[in-house]
Amino acid sequence: MAGICGTDLELAQGYMGYRGIPGHEFVGEVADGPAGAMAGKRVVGEINAACGRCDLCLANLGRHCPNRTVLGILGRNGAFAEYLTLPEKNLVELPDSIPDELGVFVEPIAAAYEIFEQVQLGRNEKILVLGDGRLGALVGLVLWAEDYQPVVGGHHAEKLDLLAALSLKTELEQHLQPGFDTVVDCTGNPNGFRRAMELVRPRGRIILKSTAANSAELNLAPIVINEISVIGSRCGRFGPAIEAVASGKVDPRPLISAMYPLADAPSALEAAGDPQNFKVLLKIE
Amino acid sequence: MAGICGTDLELAQGYMGYRGIPGHEFVGEVADGPAGAMAGKRVVGEINAACGRCDLCLANLGRHCPNRTVLGILGRNGAFAEYLTLPEKNLVELPDSIPDELGVFVEPIAAAYEIFEQVQLGRNEKILVLGDGRLGALVGLVLWAEDYQPVVGGHHAEKLDLLAALSLKTELEQHLQPGFDTVVDCTGNPNGFRRAMELVRPRGRIILKSTAANSAELNLAPIVINEISVIGSRCGRFGPAIEAVASGKVDPRPLISAMYPLADAPSALEAAGDPQNFKVLLKIE
Repeated sequence: MAGICGTDLELAQGYMGYRGIPGHEFVGEVADGPAGAMAGKRVVGEINAACGRCDLCLANLGRHCPNRTVLGILGRNGAFAEYLTLPEKNLVELPDSIPDELGVFVEPIAAAYEIFEQVQLGRNEKILVLGDGRLGALVGLVLWAEDYQPVVGGHHAEKLDLLAALSLKTELEQHLQPGFDTVVDCTGNPNGFRRAMELVRPRGRIILKSTAANSAELNLAPIVINEISVIGSRCGRFGPAIEAVASGKVDPRPLISAMYPLADAPSALEAAGDPQNFKVLLKIE
Repeated sequence: MAGICGTDLELAQGYMGYRGIPGHEFVGEVADGPAGAMAGKRVVGEINAACGRCDLCLANLGRHCPNRTVLGILGRNGAFAEYLTLPEKNLVELPDSIPDELGVFVEPIAAAYEIFEQVQLGRNEKILVLGDGRLGALVGLVLWAEDYQPVVGGHHAEKLDLLAALSLKTELEQHLQPGFDTVVDCTGNPNGFRRAMELVRPRGRIILKSTAANSAELNLAPIVINEISVIGSRCGRFGPAIEAVASGKVDPRPLISAMYPLADAPSALEAAGDPQNFKVLLKIE
């Protein structure tokens, strides 16, 4: 099973100049490996395949290895296919208690947990998650699960209603008032970053989760004038994410909008691009 | 005496939409004040005039007071004039040991010291100061005075030669290699920020000192992919800067390229815009 992510849609627009099979969120069964290692195991996989020898790898930052390939994103075919390959050390066996529809969220949930590896959030901080898409929803759920009180702000009333039903505080984007200590930009477009600059307080921080294929007209003067910190944030370690789904602390299954067979992948990608939908999954038989 | 800063040139291009007398780096003599306070004293002045009552003021962040005026930048006429006004609490008397030509640097040196209020630099960090203009030179001198070993990178061989004569490590911009832990962007233009994104290592940081009137085409994807932190940095407290010039630890007087009388201010501004010059001063009789 594979999940469709905003990045997959951006790759189709030319992001990273990637030519290959996309897909980096998956649950799979090991078909073959060196000396049959892990054969038959149900696994998820960290998507960065690092060299293991460079300075960054030795500093436990293989996710930033300059020699890396990245599943379905950079130099390595991805999960929208019957088979994929990853180094054995990237694989993590899934406990039986985690069904496929939950396991497929481990990769993006790990990306949400990455925030805690990078910044120290205060317990009483005013946190805004900007963007009510897949990523914004997951970041909101993870922050809530970890006892923070984020507000999720977005343009889509129906999606915000669903998130509110999952206990999240929500607000239509046009009603948001400035003054947040931390804004997590999950909008996936440069307007979101401009809006984040307006909504964060002086000396506050913007956690930038969005990447986009296209550049945009930006003036960074507000960053300097208001002494904002911007922290780029990408993939995370799988450990905390697996723990969070195994314990039931984070359960994003209500975000599943549709499931398609692999043969209908084009329709699935189209559905994933519809802003009314959250998560679209591909079932690979 | 007043100093001309890159911001003054940007204001003339429309930055901040400011209409008024520019000038925010100065040494002056108090002509009048409430009950004659400080009359006759030779002073420098913090440029942000804050309300003193809002949350940010109460948190000692008057420099970010939303109700502030800023000398020569926002709602308050500046120092390219015979007289200016500032609240008494903004003024700091200069010791006799600091001549005018040194005191006039207190404000931009304070802006360089602001970096230490915001980030913890490691003693062995590879630090790049990008930009060989006024601000880059001062940031380089301050980092060097505080026992860091920055490299100043820029386009102007002659200016780099002068900085090398002041003990700084320098490098022509086109010879710079990626991998810096910290890049301080003092270029004053958006190309500098693009270059900083190339030169900083993954998980490194960019300290953004440049503001510009114009926006530019930018794609922030490298910030996310490489998990860079960007820290906007503006004005600083005057205390550390006065201490640094009083002790002789920082002496930027070799950066003075020219001194003009106030009547020749247009020529002075033109000279300040010439990339061959460092600091241009105005002498106000």
